[in-house]
Amino acid sequence: MALWFTEIQRHIDRLQEARQVIACGAISGAMGNFAHLDPRVEEHVCHKLGLMPCPVSTQIIQRDRHAQFLTTLAVIGSSLEKMATEIRNLQRTEILEVEEPFSKGQKGSSAMPHKRNPMMSERVAGLSRVLRGNALAAMENVSLWHERDLTHSSVERVIIPDSCILLDYMLEKFTAIVQGLVVYEDRMQKNIERTRGLVFSQELMLVLVGKGLLREEAYRLVQGHAMTSWTQGLDFRELIMKDEEIMRHLSPHDIEKAFSYDIYKDKVDYIFKRCGLD
Amino acid sequence: MALWFTEIQRHIDRLQEARQVIACGAISGAMGNFAHLDPRVEEHVCHKLGLMPCPVSTQIIQRDRHAQFLTTLAVIGSSLEKMATEIRNLQRTEILEVEEPFSKGQKGSSAMPHKRNPMMSERVAGLSRVLRGNALAAMENVSLWHERDLTHSSVERVIIPDSCILLDYMLEKFTAIVQGLVVYEDRMQKNIERTRGLVFSQELMLVLVGKGLLREEAYRLVQGHAMTSWTQGLDFRELIMKDEEIMRHLSPHDIEKAFSYDIYKDKVDYIFKRCGLD
Amino acid sequence: MALWFTEIQRHIDRLQEARQVIACGAISGAMGNFAHLDPRVEEHVCHKLGLMPCPVSTQIIQRDRHAQFLTTLAVIGSSLEKMATEIRNLQRTEILEVEEPFSKGQKGSSAMPHKRNPMMSERVAGLSRVLRGNALAAMENVSLWHERDLTHSSVERVIIPDSCILLDYMLEKFTAIVQGLVVYEDRMQKNIERTRGLVFSQELMLVLVGKGLLREEAYRLVQGHAMTSWTQGLDFRELIMKDEEIMRHLSPHDIEKAFSYDIYKDKVDYIFKRCGLD
Amino acid sequence: MALWFTEIQRHIDRLQEARQVIACGAISGAMGNFAHLDPRVEEHVCHKLGLMPCPVSTQIIQRDRHAQFLTTLAVIGSSLEKMATEIRNLQRTEILEVEEPFSKGQKGSSAMPHKRNPMMSERVAGLSRVLRGNALAAMENVSLWHERDLTHSSVERVIIPDSCILLDYMLEKFTAIVQGLVVYEDRMQKNIERTRGLVFSQELMLVLVGKGLLREEAYRLVQGHAMTSWTQGLDFRELIMKDEEIMRHLSPHDIEKAFSYDIYKDKVDYIFKRCGLD
Repeated sequence: MALWFTEIQRHIDRLQEARQVIACGAISGAMGNFAHLDPRVEEHVCHKLGLMPCPVSTQIIQRDRHAQFLTTLAVIGSSLEKMATEIRNLQRTEILEVEEPFSKGQKGSSAMPHKRNPMMSERVAGLSRVLRGNALAAMENVSLWHERDLTHSSVERVIIPDSCILLDYMLEKFTAIVQGLVVYEDRMQKNIERTRGLVFSQELMLVLVGKGLLREEAYRLVQGHAMTSWTQGLDFRELIMKDEEIMRHLSPHDIEKAFSYDIYKDKVDYIFKRCGLD
Repeated sequence: MALWFTEIQRHIDRLQEARQVIACGAISGAMGNFAHLDPRVEEHVCHKLGLMPCPVSTQIIQRDRHAQFLTTLAVIGSSLEKMATEIRNLQRTEILEVEEPFSKGQKGSSAMPHKRNPMMSERVAGLSRVLRGNALAAMENVSLWHERDLTHSSVERVIIPDSCILLDYMLEKFTAIVQGLVVYEDRMQKNIERTRGLVFSQELMLVLVGKGLLREEAYRLVQGHAMTSWTQGLDFRELIMKDEEIMRHLSPHDIEKAFSYDIYKDKVDYIFKRCGLD
Repeated sequence: MALWFTEIQRHIDRLQEARQVIACGAISGAMGNFAHLDPRVEEHVCHKLGLMPCPVSTQIIQRDRHAQFLTTLAVIGSSLEKMATEIRNLQRTEILEVEEPFSKGQKGSSAMPHKRNPMMSERVAGLSRVLRGNALAAMENVSLWHERDLTHSSVERVIIPDSCILLDYMLEKFTAIVQGLVVYEDRMQKNIERTRGLVFSQELMLVLVGKGLLREEAYRLVQGHAMTSWTQGLDFRELIMKDEEIMRHLSPHDIEKAFSYDIYKDKVDYIFKRCGLD
Repeated sequence: MALWFTEIQRHIDRLQEARQVIACGAISGAMGNFAHLDPRVEEHVCHKLGLMPCPVSTQIIQRDRHAQFLTTLAVIGSSLEKMATEIRNLQRTEILEVEEPFSKGQKGSSAMPHKRNPMMSERVAGLSRVLRGNALAAMENVSLWHERDLTHSSVERVIIPDSCILLDYMLEKFTAIVQGLVVYEDRMQKNIERTRGLVFSQELMLVLVGKGLLREEAYRLVQGHAMTSWTQGLDFRELIMKDEEIMRHLSPHDIEKAFSYDIYKDKVDYIFKRCGLD
C-alpha cells in the first residue's frame, strides 16, 4: 500500500505538470504572427480562461503538449492496471487474501452462484489498454505539416474526451475498490504457512554463511531440504533440525531467529516514514 | 492508380479472410465443455446466425480472432493514410496536380478565401491513427486468464464499434475523393518540365554506358551538368549538347531518344495487364 | 490444450498467408515503369529467388505487405503471451497444477532456493510487448510519400530482424516449455475439491429448474448454501442435503448425478474430433 | 525556428524531469522489506552512484518511472519527426526553400544524379516510429505481478538501449541538419509571389470590414476575385483594382497597406522576446 501511495504521488506530480503544459492558449492568427490582431487580445482572453499564452504558436498550439498529457494519462492507467492486477491475483479462489467490495444482496456469476469475480478490477485493467492506444495516436498527432494541418483534430475529438472520461471512471472505480476492499488477514497467514517454512530458507542460508560456511556450501545444504520439503510436503524446519551437518553450526537460538517473522517487519516503520506516511 | 487498385485488392482479400475468422460462435457453457447443453444447440444457433461454431471454446471465443480483425482494419487504414497523404502532397499550392472535389459555392478557408485545403484527405490520414491505437488494444486483449476474464469486454465496447465506424467513414470519404478528384494534367507536365530536363539524366547516363563508357565515368560527366543545370537554372539538354566529350559518343538520334518520354510509358499496358486492369 | 492447438493452427494459416504476401519482388526502376529494364529481368530474378513479381510497384514494394507480416507476428506473440500467462498462473505456489521444465541440478532463485519461477513463460509473455510495439511501427511505415521515401528503411532494419528473431526465440522456448511441462494431476483434483463442492452449484440449480422450480427460485436456494459453504468452509453437498425445501424435489439419484464430474467430460471426445484431434 | 526552440526547451524540461524520476535505486531485498540488509547500505550505495533511494520498493523499482522515461523519449522523437517532416516538405523540388547540408563531392541518388533527397530528415522521421513502439512496450511493462515478475527485463534489454541510442542518433543528425541547413531566401520570396497576391486576401477582407462592410459581404467580394486569380492565373491585386464596387471603399493608401508584408513581420520582435530569444 505504501508502494501504491508513492506511485500515485508521482502520478499527481505528473498530472499537475501535464495540466500546466496543456493549459495554454493562442490567438495569433493563421500564421501565428498576429498579423490581424493585437497580442494583448490573446493575453486578455487567455487570462480570462485561466490559460497561459503560448510564447509562440502557428495557427495552433503545438501538439507535443497534448502528447505529454495523453501519455501521462496512459502511464497512470498502466499503474492502475498493475494495482488492479494485484487485486485480481489476490482474489483468486486459491489465494483469496482480498476481495473487491461486494454488497450483500448482489448476485455472483449467473452460472456459478458462489463465485465472485474481481469484475471492477478486471474492467480497470482492461481499460488501460484503450488509454495506451490513444496515447499512441496522440504522439503521432505531433507531426503536423507547416503551420498546421487538419489530421489531428478528428483524432483529438475521439481520444481526448475518451481518455479523460475513461481515466476518471477508472480512478473512481479503483478508489471504490480500495475503500471497500475486504482483507482476509488469516488467509494471508495461512498462505505463508502453506510453504511449510520454506519462506525462511534465505535467512537460514545467510545465518549459515554468518557462521563461516561458504555461500555455495550453505546454498547446497539448504536447497536439498527445501526441495524435499517442497516435493514431499514435509515441514522444512523439521528437516533442517534433523540434519546434523547443519545443526553443528546452529544453536537453538539461531534456529529460533532464522524461523521468525520479525526481520520482515522490523523496517516497516522506517519505510513508512520515508514515504511520508508516519 | 494501378498501385492503389492492387493494394485495395489485397485489403479486400484480408478483410474477407478476417471476416471469416471472426464470424464464429460458441454456446458451450462457462467452461466450454457443453456440460449443461447439447452441442447441437450451438450448431443450430450458429447456423441461423450465419456463423461457424468454434471447434473449441472456453467461456468465450478466443481473441486472436478479434485481433486479426482489428489489425486488418488498421492496416487498411494505414493504406488509406498513404493514399490520402499522396493527395495532400499533390494538392499543395506549389505542386497542385490534383485537388479534392470542391463544390462551386463551397467556402474556402475562413481566413484565406482562395485557399482550398485537402480537408477530407487530412481527416482520413488522421483517423488512421485511431485505428492503429485500437489495433494495439485488440492485441493486448488476446491474453486473457484461464477460461476468460472480463478485461476484454469493456475495451471491445469502445474499440470494435469505433474502428468499424471510422474505417467505414474513411472508405466512404476516400471513395468520394477519388470519384470527384480534379486532375490537372497540364500542371503535371509543367512540373516535370520545371526540372529543365534533369528527369532524363538517368537514361542519358545509361545510353553513355551503352556506348562503352564506364558507369563511374558516365555518372561523373552527367552529374556535373546536372548540378550546373540545377543550381544555375540552365537547360540540361543544352548543357549536354555543348559538351564535346559527351557528344563524341552520341548521335543526334541518341540524344533524341535519351530525352524522350516514350520509355516511361512503354510498359504501362503491360503493367495494367498484370494488375488485371486490361 | 485443444484450444491452444486450434489457435496455433489459425496462426500457421496466417503466417503462411503473410509469408506469401511478402514473398514478392520488384526490379522495375526508380519509378516502377521499367524505363531502363525489361520486365523479363524482374520475372527471371524473382523466379530464381522464389518470389512473385509484384504486379505493379514504385521504386519499392508497398509496405502494407510488411505491415501484414509484422502484425501477424505480433498477434502470434499475443497468443503465446496468453499461453505463457496460463502457465504462470498455474505454476503459482498456491495453485501449482503445472511447472515449467526444471533440470535436476538447476538452481532456483538465488535468494529463495526452493522457489522455481516460471522464468521462461515470463520471458515469452514479456517479449510479446516488443512484437506489438514493432507492429505499430510497421503500420506507420505504410504511409510513404510519392514513389517512396526513406523513412521506412531505417525502421525496418530494426523491427524486421528483431521481430523475426524474437518470435523464433519465443516459439522455441514455448515449445520446450510445453514439451517438458510437469503436470500435477493430483493437485488439479485437489484444487477442484478445495471448493468443497461449489463447482457443482450450477448443475444443481439446473436440476432444480428441471424439476419445475423457477430459475430465480432455484438460484436463491442454491446461492444461500453456496455462500454459507464459501464463507464458513462447510461442505456444499452436506448443506444441500440438510435443506428440506431442496430435498423435496430431489431423489438420491438426482443428487448423485448433480455432484458428478461426468457431464464435464462427456463431450471431450466430440470437441477433440471437431478440432481434428481424434 | 522560435517555435522549434520553445518546443525543444519543453523537451529539455521533460527530459530532466524524467531523468530525475528514473535516477533512483533500491537494495531492499527480495520483498523490499530490508529483511537481510540495513537500509544504510542502500543509502550509501545509491549516494555513491548519484541515485536517490526509492522511498519504498519491492524486489525492484516500479516501472512507472521507466514508462515516463520512454514515453518522454518518444514524445521528443515525435517532435523531431515534425521538424524533419518540415524540412522534407520544404526541400521538395517544387518548393525548395531549404536543403539539408550536402557536401561538394557527395553523390546524389545513384539513379538520378541531380537529385538530392532529404535523406537524414527522412531517417529521423522514420526512427521516431521505433521510439513510439518502444514507449508502448514500456507502458505495458508497468503492470508486473506481486513483488515483481520477469516479464519486464527481457523487454527492457531491447527497448531501453535501443530508444536511448536511437534518440541520441536522431538528435545528433538533426542538429547537424539545422547547423548546415542551406536556406534559399529568394525561393521563399518567389513561392510567396507565386500566389499572385492571394496571400493578402485576408488582410484585404478585414480592411473592407473596417470600412463598414459586413464580413459576409467582404468575403463574397474578395473570394470571387481570389478564385478568378487562382484558376486563371491572373494577378489578384490587378483584379481587385478593376472592381469598382470594392474600390469605392478603398483609397490607394488602403490598397498599399493591404498588399504589404509589414503586418506579417511587425510582431516578430515581440514573439522572440516572449520566447526568451531577444
